[in-house]
Amino acid sequence: MPDHPPAAPQPVTVLGLGALGSALAVAAVAAGHPTTVWNRTPGRAGALVAAGAREARTARDAVTASPLVVSVLLDHEAVHAVLDPVADALAGRTLVNLTTTTPEQSRELAAWAADHDVVHLDGGVMAVPATIGGPGSEILYSGSRAAFDGARPLLDAWGASTWFGEDPGLAPLYDLALLAGMYAMFAGFFHGVAMVGTAGVSAGDFARRAAPWLAAMTSALAEYADVVDRRDYAGPGQQSLAFSDLADLVRASEEAGLATDVVDAVQALVRRQVDAGHGAHGFARVVESIRTPAPATAPGGEG
Amino acid sequence: MPDHPPAAPQPVTVLGLGALGSALAVAAVAAGHPTTVWNRTPGRAGALVAAGAREARTARDAVTASPLVVSVLLDHEAVHAVLDPVADALAGRTLVNLTTTTPEQSRELAAWAADHDVVHLDGGVMAVPATIGGPGSEILYSGSRAAFDGARPLLDAWGASTWFGEDPGLAPLYDLALLAGMYAMFAGFFHGVAMVGTAGVSAGDFARRAAPWLAAMTSALAEYADVVDRRDYAGPGQQSLAFSDLADLVRASEEAGLATDVVDAVQALVRRQVDAGHGAHGFARVVESIRTPAPATAPGGEG
Ligand SMILES: NC(=O)c1ccc[n+]([C@@H]2O[C@H](COP(=O)([O-])OP(=O)(O)OC[C@H]3O[C@@H](n4cnc5c(N)ncnc54)[C@H](OP(=O)(O)O)[C@@H]3O)[C@@H](O)[C@H]2O)c1
Ligand SMILES: NC(=O)c1ccc[n+]([C@@H]2O[C@H](COP(=O)([O-])OP(=O)(O)OC[C@H]3O[C@@H](n4cnc5c(N)ncnc54)[C@H](OP(=O)(O)O)[C@@H]3O)[C@@H](O)[C@H]2O)c1
Repeated sequence: MPDHPPAAPQPVTVLGLGALGSALAVAAVAAGHPTTVWNRTPGRAGALVAAGAREARTARDAVTASPLVVSVLLDHEAVHAVLDPVADALAGRTLVNLTTTTPEQSRELAAWAADHDVVHLDGGVMAVPATIGGPGSEILYSGSRAAFDGARPLLDAWGASTWFGEDPGLAPLYDLALLAGMYAMFAGFFHGVAMVGTAGVSAGDFARRAAPWLAAMTSALAEYADVVDRRDYAGPGQQSLAFSDLADLVRASEEAGLATDVVDAVQALVRRQVDAGHGAHGFARVVESIRTPAPATAPGGEG
Repeated sequence: MPDHPPAAPQPVTVLGLGALGSALAVAAVAAGHPTTVWNRTPGRAGALVAAGAREARTARDAVTASPLVVSVLLDHEAVHAVLDPVADALAGRTLVNLTTTTPEQSRELAAWAADHDVVHLDGGVMAVPATIGGPGSEILYSGSRAAFDGARPLLDAWGASTWFGEDPGLAPLYDLALLAGMYAMFAGFFHGVAMVGTAGVSAGDFARRAAPWLAAMTSALAEYADVVDRRDYAGPGQQSLAFSDLADLVRASEEAGLATDVVDAVQALVRRQVDAGHGAHGFARVVESIRTPAPATAPGGEG
């Protein structure tokens, strides 16, 4: 961070030089940490080596080069594909896994790490490669508190670091929960783009109005959360589920010849509560539709 | 508006004293406009009369009291139920309908108005009753430009007024398109609340992080819109559809025992593009899934 004294050098290995891994390695080198890098497919470390990183020929060499090993691979399967064969070399070291996983996958990797005498910290990266190390970059961590505290000089070079708890599934859960909001908002925005597009309005014109509107509407979330935490869906001043039935929205979308996936999904949440007799309750009650899947649409067991 | 000289008094009638109609009538009186009010069910005008409004006994009396008539009723059917019997009295006057309708319903009412020599302006209220007349209150208009210009002294007392065009369906289209984004964002937020709730995290804790996160993510919308307007889904720097498949999100939601309506809907938009061979294209391409309903899920004709 530019306005702090340089952090103590912290030797680190980065496994995976995809878009995100490369950005993390660049920021580690720039912050003065001795950085070893490795990628399955060779030839992606050139610029990093020129900047001062050391390239390891094998994953085993990479793991043994540093007490702190950061994995930034495609997915949970890729993490096991890389780490399983070098588990013995990883013993006694700290693994920070920044690969996106589900909470269950994170807990599985934590159990695997414990079996192999590896200290495990999970991280969920709430940033894109271009913003790593810059303002707004944030990484959510869970798992070993000692590992988090010990790695802070490095972690803080990547963005704001928050630790959520010892349960390693917490950071991925938070990460995915925030992404659920983001993707749903994006989908709703694109639904709006398609709607106004039927009248010849450009997406740009719509975005100039939609972006500040949606940003302003986030101010409603704290109050919704308060209602949920108090389970106070019948309290005064709430817009009722019956009122927020989305009937106009679905109907207008159909009249315009558009696919109704997004608005149908929201309406389904509303209607399950209305059908259960809660039409006079507040909109925040839709969270109960999510917590309790409808019998007809509940996902089957995964075996 | 507090920092402007008082507007010229503009006699107005407000039909409908529900939550929104009452707030509009209060603001009209406060701004010094001679205000006549009427509601189907009597007894809701007490406070308004005390503040200086005049209560009409019948809809006909109400309509004949002012050259400008504002309808704020439950829905399109209620508007016809109130106005059809008094169409002759409405002739020669201006009707501003602030009842929420679909674009088609607005065009239907405009045609009805033209048949009865009534000047028609449609308004979409982007505010809740408590904020009418305050900062952030905004009403979108379409239809007669002359009616819009003539009514401005009154309209501006309710919030920022924007006219979108002569097509009366434009304001409701914009209104509903913005609401699509808002409801989808809310649904995604509640999905996140349910996810973190499975680990005992309160909705309030999640909201403190989700609200600024979602507000920050609205900064992506202008660039998405630019991609859509240029149909440049293959341009560089875009996060690909294959990458944004939401598989982790759906899987984590299932693992947590939650209903997946919201994340399934977004994933369906992504997958229709991936299945059509566009997996390497950018996420903004989901708008094409909305513009072209999937044959299997297209809504049936409405007869
Ligand atoms: N990019 C972002 O904006 C972003 C943001 C937050 C989180 N993330 C997460 O960060 C992780 C990496 O993302 P990315 O954008 O860097 O992805 P990417 O550019 O596609 O890179 C994927 C990396 O994984 C490696 N890999 C894939 N399968 C492998 C296997 N079986 N064995 C060994 N290595 C394998 C690839 O190596 P090869 O070069 O040999 O294929 C490459 O280094 C993902 O989990 C992603 O969800 C990314
Ligand atoms: N409230 C908001 O936050 C908000 C924001 C934007 C837009 N809007 C829109 O504004 C409109 C009014 O909303 P609101 O919140 O004021 O609703 P509301 O409180 O439920 O009031 C509905 C009004 O419609 C009247 N009405 C219903 N059916 C009628 C009929 N068949 N004949 C005559 N009058 C009838 C009611 O009269 P009675 O008293 O006799 O039942 C009442 O005056 C709706 O279209 C709504 O979508 C509301």
